[in-house]
Amino acid sequence: MTPTSRPDRKYCGGVSDDEEILVRTTPSSPVGLHRVTDPAGVALPQAARVVDATPELWPDEVLIAVETLNLDAASFRQLSEKHAADGAAVRAEVLDIVATRGKMQNPVTGSGGMLIGTVAEVGPESPLGLSVGDRVATLVSLSLTPLTITDALSRWDGRSERVPAQGTAVLFGRSIAARLPDDLSPDLALMVMDVCGAPALVARVVGEYVERGVAPTVAVLGGAGKSGSLSLAAARDAGAGRCLGVVPSEREAALLRESGLADEVVIADARSPLGLSDAVAAAGGPADVTVVCVDVPGCEQPAILATAQGGTIIYFSMATSFSAAALGAEGLAADVRMLVGNGYVPGHADLALDLLRRTPAVRALFEARLAE
Amino acid sequence: MTPTSRPDRKYCGGVSDDEEILVRTTPSSPVGLHRVTDPAGVALPQAARVVDATPELWPDEVLIAVETLNLDAASFRQLSEKHAADGAAVRAEVLDIVATRGKMQNPVTGSGGMLIGTVAEVGPESPLGLSVGDRVATLVSLSLTPLTITDALSRWDGRSERVPAQGTAVLFGRSIAARLPDDLSPDLALMVMDVCGAPALVARVVGEYVERGVAPTVAVLGGAGKSGSLSLAAARDAGAGRCLGVVPSEREAALLRESGLADEVVIADARSPLGLSDAVAAAGGPADVTVVCVDVPGCEQPAILATAQGGTIIYFSMATSFSAAALGAEGLAADVRMLVGNGYVPGHADLALDLLRRTPAVRALFEARLAE
Repeated sequence: MTPTSRPDRKYCGGVSDDEEILVRTTPSSPVGLHRVTDPAGVALPQAARVVDATPELWPDEVLIAVETLNLDAASFRQLSEKHAADGAAVRAEVLDIVATRGKMQNPVTGSGGMLIGTVAEVGPESPLGLSVGDRVATLVSLSLTPLTITDALSRWDGRSERVPAQGTAVLFGRSIAARLPDDLSPDLALMVMDVCGAPALVARVVGEYVERGVAPTVAVLGGAGKSGSLSLAAARDAGAGRCLGVVPSEREAALLRESGLADEVVIADARSPLGLSDAVAAAGGPADVTVVCVDVPGCEQPAILATAQGGTIIYFSMATSFSAAALGAEGLAADVRMLVGNGYVPGHADLALDLLRRTPAVRALFEARLAE
Repeated sequence: MTPTSRPDRKYCGGVSDDEEILVRTTPSSPVGLHRVTDPAGVALPQAARVVDATPELWPDEVLIAVETLNLDAASFRQLSEKHAADGAAVRAEVLDIVATRGKMQNPVTGSGGMLIGTVAEVGPESPLGLSVGDRVATLVSLSLTPLTITDALSRWDGRSERVPAQGTAVLFGRSIAARLPDDLSPDLALMVMDVCGAPALVARVVGEYVERGVAPTVAVLGGAGKSGSLSLAAARDAGAGRCLGVVPSEREAALLRESGLADEVVIADARSPLGLSDAVAAAGGPADVTVVCVDVPGCEQPAILATAQGGTIIYFSMATSFSAAALGAEGLAADVRMLVGNGYVPGHADLALDLLRRTPAVRALFEARLAE
């Protein structure tokens, strides 16, 4: 390597003494403000229209060589419906979004997804504790991760959320990435990590009830899905009383019944106010804690009606409308605590991976999805 | 009164023994599904296109004789702009909406407003605790309240949100109405009731901290506004430690400083991630509880950055984006609890009116707004 002559770049020590990498010398921010180019200087990367995704690092950043993108389910669904399941058109739009915005953030849903890759470069001031060669999953959303794609997504048919990809991604000082575990396949681990915020928050909320001496009735809408099945397992593990799994079809009901994750499996349309609340009531509800893991719009008021007065609703679906939830509860005179499903809880990845390892039924559901 | 011969009506005991009223005998729903005629049976009244507003009660309903409608600000603005401030045309459209839909829900904005009236009839099974003759404000939106108008709005010039009106409105079993206090003007009481969910939820959340022996630092974004000033007063009242009021301008800062509602008044743009968090930190933050009462988009991540790890954010602004909050916290690796500002907390109207009475500074801020 030779020193650069550009004033905003310099070579400095990398992760080991005998290594030098090129880093930028303008100031950087642990939350990535320095990468925001539109609107510059005022928005955080997630809210930004455009971020600078060039793969030259600031000293506290990490560069990832991308292997796979996992698009957020709500995002993929929106793209797929918009293009009537035309895979080539979906692929073209994803490429266009990344080229235009410098990140894979669906402009309609606002959501992103996550990625798997290998650490390619570690800035000398990175606090993340990663080493070159580590195989990692990023646990911050693609909606704020500077991303380039160099293979035109030629190995992807545009028909699934899992996108084989070549390119680069950048982690900031305050990002989250988890090393992929040795005992699970990367695809399986990624699938778990993608939804690991849900079981962690469910465990915390149920734990609060248990601390007060209550074993809450928990209803999980979308209980046979990824975040749903982990949420059911987490609820049980944290000391929940009755666990209800709500699913839309007999097929999913059979899957969930077989898993034994729920005490009661209910078939109901989570968008139907009375359909849902009647079904939950018949299965031993209303719920003290309702967990919304169904990524379709219109579940806000039905979830409220299925929840006991004084109960808690955790909205994990990115299709949730803030005003529908806020005005919906008011319109129903519902005294419910409504939580925005924060995807970050300390230790969330380890908790979810551990639940999967300890709960064969969850693992079987995940592996069945992988095989689909 | 004589018994009816119609099979779906019967006379039964009213609120007192010597009174009989005519009620319907088909089943009713506490959330008003029985009044939805389009699409029948599947939508809640707020989502419905048309509701049945005929003033004959089901046993759990209450009939209100309407005095005044207060149109939602966004709704009135849309109507006024559409008709170029032609008051007669605005009036004609409001009459048409109510006649067509059976409720005053602006088809463009989706919003309604609230009303003042007098209780005219109380169904024998109504759980609302109202009596004939009570002067009340409805605290559920007009967008879901069955409404008839009988005076063609002849006393309204179509030029203000406040609409003198004659007609009837129906409250369901699970509606909310508050008796108007004798000691406050109806306009002042209505203004307080319009935002009463905010101080009630702030009081509850701060109270939870206090129960655990913590006097939390509370930051209210938009602290000089209606919901903001009441939230500051509620936080103090519930045992908060340091109270910070964040405002956008020197003018509002002067107002809030004079009120003494905050220990520290901070001027910052609530949409600026670093601007806000730096300002809050300089004033003694980060906050344990951050309350967002600023009705502009883009405050989600700034609020997260201004909040301590393990802290709580209550979003009251209808401009809040669910995905910006959820993904924003994840993207910042922020372990914060985020609450959707539910407009209903039991006792919210009384709590807010009581705060106004006991806090001259809050009352002065509200009265200054009334005089504007």
